Amino acid sequence: MTVFLVGAGPGDPGLLTVRGLELVRSCDALVYDVLVAPELVEEAPDDAILISRESVRQEELNELLVELGRTGLDVVRLKGGDPFVFGRGGEEVEALAEAGVPWEVVPGVSAMSAVPASAGIPVTHRGVSAQVTLVSGHSASGEDLDFAQLASAPGTLVVFMGLAHLSAIAAGLIAAGKDRHTPAAVVSRGTLADGQSVRGELWDVARLAADLASPALLVVGDVVALAYASESVSTRAGFARS
Amino acid sequence: MTVFLVGAGPGDPGLLTVRGLELVRSCDALVYDVLVAPELVEEAPDDAILISRESVRQEELNELLVELGRTGLDVVRLKGGDPFVFGRGGEEVEALAEAGVPWEVVPGVSAMSAVPASAGIPVTHRGVSAQVTLVSGHSASGEDLDFAQLASAPGTLVVFMGLAHLSAIAAGLIAAGKDRHTPAAVVSRGTLADGQSVRGELWDVARLAADLASPALLVVGDVVALAYASESVSTRAGFARS
Repeated sequence: MTVFLVGAGPGDPGLLTVRGLELVRSCDALVYDVLVAPELVEEAPDDAILISRESVRQEELNELLVELGRTGLDVVRLKGGDPFVFGRGGEEVEALAEAGVPWEVVPGVSAMSAVPASAGIPVTHRGVSAQVTLVSGHSASGEDLDFAQLASAPGTLVVFMGLAHLSAIAAGLIAAGKDRHTPAAVVSRGTLADGQSVRGELWDVARLAADLASPALLVVGDVVALAYASESVSTRAGFARS
Repeated sequence: MTVFLVGAGPGDPGLLTVRGLELVRSCDALVYDVLVAPELVEEAPDDAILISRESVRQEELNELLVELGRTGLDVVRLKGGDPFVFGRGGEEVEALAEAGVPWEVVPGVSAMSAVPASAGIPVTHRGVSAQVTLVSGHSASGEDLDFAQLASAPGTLVVFMGLAHLSAIAAGLIAAGKDRHTPAAVVSRGTLADGQSVRGELWDVARLAADLASPALLVVGDVVALAYASESVSTRAGFARS
């Protein structure tokens, strides 16, 4: 009788939480994002109602969750990453709360640090980065990025969903005063078996990333140039069905 | 024959990843932080070497991990939150990489979004916050916070480990031009059974949080004032030993 917003993590199914897996395994209905690992969808009970979120607009999805929640069934809304980090989970919770449907958020591993980590890059490092700024390349609020403010931010900048606008983002940051030689990386499909990453500097990272697939994260900052960050550490935990 | 840096998540043992739990259950040696849930330490094999990190300085710890790694045993270094988000995991990896010891990072759920979520607060929300800035209240690099830069950042500000300096942080932000009426919350021991939170505005949040215990997170931004954020949603998944 609750709608659980569960973060599925950044891609690798092994990065779902223990609590999240328990909820998927015991749910009555599962509404899942396209980017959620198929292995996780398969963990739902054989007779659970399965609903792919693909091609459902956000407003319709909110309404669907309210309707499902009102039936009294246990509903799991399985979302990529963390529901509250550029996941529009807030809008779903808002609709549920307004309708009086009980809800709970089960946090997930955000791509924010897991995707850079899959390329060996830490978003913080003593003496190198003590601040992290997260933005979305296509802002959920429709606002443009404030390049002047972002260019002045110390530490690490992480841009979600910026692959389509990499050149414009890099150019905007450089025009606003960010050093064009700031180390930068793009990590594509991080934590997945076909993950790839490129490293360069702000001025050339878009060119280097031309062939990468989405979803991808742009990381800008000196952490990209740490010695150990250049080791290949791509791993995929996979998922053993038990 | 690998040292796995595993993120244990923000406190609730149910928020460990599936992959992390598998590694804990099969390790030869487990080195764990004080803040890691005891239930997780109990998941290690009965004959695993257990080492509490308490009262071990970072440099000694790095050395210890190298020594353990060189034995060829599977070592799990279980860290609160995510290893690469203010977790000093980078320093441990650096020591391992320099010594030629194989290492792998298994990301965890960061307190960054999970702790605010435990009080119903999303760090991003369409139309309200499309940017998140993370800093540490006692900077790992020893630098002071750049209040002018932080005060100009749109969206949500999340301050880790800031409980001891709440008044100074709030005063610094207000002095640098941040609206003193900006909604602000402190979430103490978020995701744990004894978690507590207070909400107010930047000018009074330190006073409201006077009795809260660490670890705690300061959240500053309009997301704190969202209607559904005021609902009590504190939950603790707990952990069923299987």
